[in-house]
Amino acid sequence: MTKVGQIDKKALRMDTTEGLASEMAAADFDNPQLQAKLAALYRDFDAAGMTPLWRTREGLMPSNPAPRAVPHVWRWARLHPLAARSADLVPVGRGGERRAIGLGNPGLPGDPYATPTLWAAIQYLAPRESAPEHRHTQSAFRFVLEGEGVWTVVDGDPVAMRRGDLLLTPGWHFHGHHNISDTPMAWLDGLDIPLVATLDQGFFEFGPEQLRDTSTPDRSRGERLWGSPGLTPVSTAGKPLRASPLMAYRWAHTDAALRAQLELDDEGYPGVVEAGHAAVRFTNPTTGGDALTTIRTEMHRLRAGTATPRSQSTASSVWQVFSGRGTVMLDGHGYELEHGDVFAVPSWSELRLQADTDLDLFTFSDAPVIEKLSLLRTDTSPRA
Amino acid sequence: MTKVGQIDKKALRMDTTEGLASEMAAADFDNPQLQAKLAALYRDFDAAGMTPLWRTREGLMPSNPAPRAVPHVWRWARLHPLAARSADLVPVGRGGERRAIGLGNPGLPGDPYATPTLWAAIQYLAPRESAPEHRHTQSAFRFVLEGEGVWTVVDGDPVAMRRGDLLLTPGWHFHGHHNISDTPMAWLDGLDIPLVATLDQGFFEFGPEQLRDTSTPDRSRGERLWGSPGLTPVSTAGKPLRASPLMAYRWAHTDAALRAQLELDDEGYPGVVEAGHAAVRFTNPTTGGDALTTIRTEMHRLRAGTATPRSQSTASSVWQVFSGRGTVMLDGHGYELEHGDVFAVPSWSELRLQADTDLDLFTFSDAPVIEKLSLLRTDTSPRA
Amino acid sequence: MTKVGQIDKKALRMDTTEGLASEMAAADFDNPQLQAKLAALYRDFDAAGMTPLWRTREGLMPSNPAPRAVPHVWRWARLHPLAARSADLVPVGRGGERRAIGLGNPGLPGDPYATPTLWAAIQYLAPRESAPEHRHTQSAFRFVLEGEGVWTVVDGDPVAMRRGDLLLTPGWHFHGHHNISDTPMAWLDGLDIPLVATLDQGFFEFGPEQLRDTSTPDRSRGERLWGSPGLTPVSTAGKPLRASPLMAYRWAHTDAALRAQLELDDEGYPGVVEAGHAAVRFTNPTTGGDALTTIRTEMHRLRAGTATPRSQSTASSVWQVFSGRGTVMLDGHGYELEHGDVFAVPSWSELRLQADTDLDLFTFSDAPVIEKLSLLRTDTSPRA
Amino acid sequence: MTKVGQIDKKALRMDTTEGLASEMAAADFDNPQLQAKLAALYRDFDAAGMTPLWRTREGLMPSNPAPRAVPHVWRWARLHPLAARSADLVPVGRGGERRAIGLGNPGLPGDPYATPTLWAAIQYLAPRESAPEHRHTQSAFRFVLEGEGVWTVVDGDPVAMRRGDLLLTPGWHFHGHHNISDTPMAWLDGLDIPLVATLDQGFFEFGPEQLRDTSTPDRSRGERLWGSPGLTPVSTAGKPLRASPLMAYRWAHTDAALRAQLELDDEGYPGVVEAGHAAVRFTNPTTGGDALTTIRTEMHRLRAGTATPRSQSTASSVWQVFSGRGTVMLDGHGYELEHGDVFAVPSWSELRLQADTDLDLFTFSDAPVIEKLSLLRTDTSPRA
Repeated sequence: MTKVGQIDKKALRMDTTEGLASEMAAADFDNPQLQAKLAALYRDFDAAGMTPLWRTREGLMPSNPAPRAVPHVWRWARLHPLAARSADLVPVGRGGERRAIGLGNPGLPGDPYATPTLWAAIQYLAPRESAPEHRHTQSAFRFVLEGEGVWTVVDGDPVAMRRGDLLLTPGWHFHGHHNISDTPMAWLDGLDIPLVATLDQGFFEFGPEQLRDTSTPDRSRGERLWGSPGLTPVSTAGKPLRASPLMAYRWAHTDAALRAQLELDDEGYPGVVEAGHAAVRFTNPTTGGDALTTIRTEMHRLRAGTATPRSQSTASSVWQVFSGRGTVMLDGHGYELEHGDVFAVPSWSELRLQADTDLDLFTFSDAPVIEKLSLLRTDTSPRA
Repeated sequence: MTKVGQIDKKALRMDTTEGLASEMAAADFDNPQLQAKLAALYRDFDAAGMTPLWRTREGLMPSNPAPRAVPHVWRWARLHPLAARSADLVPVGRGGERRAIGLGNPGLPGDPYATPTLWAAIQYLAPRESAPEHRHTQSAFRFVLEGEGVWTVVDGDPVAMRRGDLLLTPGWHFHGHHNISDTPMAWLDGLDIPLVATLDQGFFEFGPEQLRDTSTPDRSRGERLWGSPGLTPVSTAGKPLRASPLMAYRWAHTDAALRAQLELDDEGYPGVVEAGHAAVRFTNPTTGGDALTTIRTEMHRLRAGTATPRSQSTASSVWQVFSGRGTVMLDGHGYELEHGDVFAVPSWSELRLQADTDLDLFTFSDAPVIEKLSLLRTDTSPRA
Repeated sequence: MTKVGQIDKKALRMDTTEGLASEMAAADFDNPQLQAKLAALYRDFDAAGMTPLWRTREGLMPSNPAPRAVPHVWRWARLHPLAARSADLVPVGRGGERRAIGLGNPGLPGDPYATPTLWAAIQYLAPRESAPEHRHTQSAFRFVLEGEGVWTVVDGDPVAMRRGDLLLTPGWHFHGHHNISDTPMAWLDGLDIPLVATLDQGFFEFGPEQLRDTSTPDRSRGERLWGSPGLTPVSTAGKPLRASPLMAYRWAHTDAALRAQLELDDEGYPGVVEAGHAAVRFTNPTTGGDALTTIRTEMHRLRAGTATPRSQSTASSVWQVFSGRGTVMLDGHGYELEHGDVFAVPSWSELRLQADTDLDLFTFSDAPVIEKLSLLRTDTSPRA
Repeated sequence: MTKVGQIDKKALRMDTTEGLASEMAAADFDNPQLQAKLAALYRDFDAAGMTPLWRTREGLMPSNPAPRAVPHVWRWARLHPLAARSADLVPVGRGGERRAIGLGNPGLPGDPYATPTLWAAIQYLAPRESAPEHRHTQSAFRFVLEGEGVWTVVDGDPVAMRRGDLLLTPGWHFHGHHNISDTPMAWLDGLDIPLVATLDQGFFEFGPEQLRDTSTPDRSRGERLWGSPGLTPVSTAGKPLRASPLMAYRWAHTDAALRAQLELDDEGYPGVVEAGHAAVRFTNPTTGGDALTTIRTEMHRLRAGTATPRSQSTASSVWQVFSGRGTVMLDGHGYELEHGDVFAVPSWSELRLQADTDLDLFTFSDAPVIEKLSLLRTDTSPRA
């Protein structure tokens, strides 16, 4: 029951009526006849499918976000071998669709969700393997920690996947993957599966089992049309798209943009988030907004020795170490970070990052959702 | 586990690997050594908090929305007496805050939610009673089925509540209620509590226990400033507000607008949704969009004898009969409707309405949320 | 030619090259050979249709807006009799279309424009007369100073015109007028004719000579559908319209809204523009923005004794006294204002209003145009 | 004067009343007394600064756009030598500010305007010369036909100017230019000077005579921050800017994007405007809209032999041949086009392009203005 601050002893005894008791004499509650009536009322409420707000208010409407999800770190060194083992035992095919293994937040038992809105998974494709085409209303991306040799085919457009690249699969685009190389490849998959499930918005459709275009161009058609900075094809100009038509954000560009921010910082010009901390957001060139409708994606670079100030956000996020070593402080607990480690930051958890070496981190969050609902709050004020 | 289309018999036996089995020889699965390895892998996945997509894909990503929430009707004739009984036993006060009793969807046991995003409750205020001020990020409204005598004070502005009125409490506005009459009053409360809970966006703050303005004007200050059609105070013009600054939508206006639509229909002019079916949406005069950021609110009027065609929407909604009698068909099952009855329509459930008498229905839904995320789908095509 | 700041004496003599002279030795300019070459160059420029910026820069790009239009007052006492005289001599009919007489700004000789973007006219309809239907891309409104008995038929919807009403004719809507009474009626017409002419955007089409609906309802169909505060027909909800679907803003509402603002001011609540100065903007209920795409329309009320502070805006505007008496100060010159007087305020002119009695003023401006181009500047800072 | 439809012979003689004559007996007009009264009325109108619509309607409100501006071609072969001659005679300096020579449309005598909204000029900077800093509300760009060696410094950021580049100076950004090379350089300047003049929105301010940063980096700071496709600095993300923060659009990117469109066309994929016609729009990466608030900028490439279908637009535009040869048909008249030639297309003029060789054309227009005012119309339907 809601008791905020100084709850008096009397109230604590009256478990059926807390919160409404203030004006009722304590004696009344001890009255057995009243207690019996109350018990009968609550039974009848139950039978009618009714729940009194006064018995649940604090749980339903907490003072601050009180997520069930907890801050958590998954170790790449553990994830990757397990994914590799599964490749020896479980083939990829129609029905299961993908050799993707979701990371479950310990605070959300039973659901393989990294946060209440975000799915994060390691996907693994063995040499010469392919995953059949399908489409779904869920938005998706792949972030490539290491390796190459896989093409993801998005609405018939083959997109090479290589180290450091971010590849998009906006909602309701057909897509499949195939590995043309002799080495396996693993990457991070991010989706809004939990959000879409909660909101009951999921549609799913199978496409062909064989990819419709197995060519392996260096650059996808989307990149050829949309990959020049600030240039828009006149044939489609003036028509904002929900999600980015640019399906690949290449590491060479991301790396150069981060490097430029830090150099400009050295030269005394603005651009970085804060001293020693560069960051780029992956955006939709038709709007300037987030590349995906429901998921924000960013790459951060911290110079060795940089420590970010505390920050809280009501958006929940997932991070992956792309390169380097450091520490993340989540609600005051420190976790050492190594290459490939993934961690979840629930709503309103306190986040601080510290870089031992130069540290590159990829992150994705549900911030676009929270912003669109005008609910986003952030707090970066220092604490005593 | 995923069971899609034509999976061969062999695969069906292999409960650990369905969906990925297509390319693996059936014999392999019967191999006890392989089965042991698989079992070990799944144990290790569990230990690492990992869940293979191929064992959960269909549940996570269904072909169509597969809500746990079910179509359901709550009878006013049952709700109201229970609420009245609680007034004899449970006082309103700080902590519990409100004598509001939430309607729980039978498909969502444990959570007092009408749909996965919407809270619907009956609130009951005894004669001379008052509910203390508080504010929260959740958006709220009251719809008044019957009675009068209560003023809701929203950010210090007293708003009379009377039969047929819709009263808003946009997120983070302080509000309290008091009944100045000698009769109790009950009404429907609607909030986005489940949505805000799922997204971990809840902030809540207590205000004064005594309402800050106990005057009882006929018209609130918000109505005086914003209640003239198409007129905007120049002092605040050009600044779109997230939620409506007009806190009361009066029955006289709503009734007149519905009547006008039906009369125009009779005269051969457009305006109605379809023949015999008038409807108005409550909107924010600063944007023309929904009155609340996350909740759509509408009033519908069906002429006696009118039957609406089937419709499906991925938005979930709750309806209340304001006056008249009829039938609602939900996924093919008919429910008789009487004055005050409340029913829930989950995502993608098929809805048809039939009016025995002239029938007025209030409804609210999460459509603004689903629209903002570009996920809304509707289907009104006839079915064989 | 441009003479800015400290240009040295020598340069001042050299009328062909001022502004470019700074680095050239003065002696050079006196060189007759050079002067001859320059003269030849300028002749060749002329022949090629070329104009050197250095000879026109200050005219083309002034330090502050330097409108040709001037502040000006037209007296209703003079306009109205002239319009009445024309009714005795000139019938209304196809071709001329309207007995409207445009007010020409003395600073814009040759063009009957009140400001560089706005047309203001007195329109006069004799008893039983009618003006045939047409449509044009120009946006239009009528503001009724006095009288009644005319209906304007907008896209087939008859709209009564009565004292104090604002009636819209958004671009490309057919419209005609007819006077069903035995008394003449005059009103103010406002259009964006100069803007549309300058931008070469004018299309015009004749409609039927006889109005397509000669009924005379008290309320137009548009008002029946859109005239309830905050209520939107569901059949068209969610589709923002360029211009307001509400074609009439009635005086009773305007008056009540202005009165309410002043009463709230008395009670200590916000709402007025400043003490003693109430104002409403006429808005499009589907967007909350201006009622017309290119023209802002507002009604202002000053209490007797109120004087507004100085203000400047890069929007140009036209004002009409609806009732009361006062003074307008335009760039420091005072003009007495009587019932019906019209005045023009060019861009960046200084405006102050002073009310001798309670003073109601209607105004329209090109502010929506300037805002959409991100060019609007205002200055309300006090001056020494 | 307006002559529409069936006005009888009599009316045609009566030059003072055409258009209103339809209902008046012809005899009346011949009445000398009436004629005298009319003459007196028109004199009194004049004295009062009033103009009857019925005498000017067709001029003010034509059936279709009737621009005074005419289609016109300026020859680079003539422009360039004249600009070069001026460099020998007229130095660049404070006051005149720029050695820019505006191209005047023959239909707009007295105003050095290419169209009613657009200014086009050739700017010429001699070796080692510099143009001092200033800023203005007018938006500007430079398009480089040939040469290099000049840096334009925009709000302190030095931006190299090289062949094929488009360089922006959005409104109210300080800017100056300097030529560090031993060869002169000429380019095309485009501004919205006429639009801003008509709307009386011009503000102008001198900056330092010496450029504040004379360094000559290969890439401007803006390009380093914003020049990676789809990447946005997190420090400024989510804040749409009126104009592009990317001040340079490099030829290498433009050329590659045009080439890619034509290659995709060859491969059977969409992207081109039409067969053989590729085009890119220069856009603001923070919005996806036009790079400048009031000016649209595009680069078009036609393959040798390609002829575009007829098109009309109510936007006015200016074009420059970047490379190749061809023909432009403007309202049915053909003009041969050579390297550097500039031509103006007034509103609603019919445009057709024909490429003799591969033909690259740069173009700018007022389309963003017309679009924002909801006035843009285009017509590409074939004509008999």
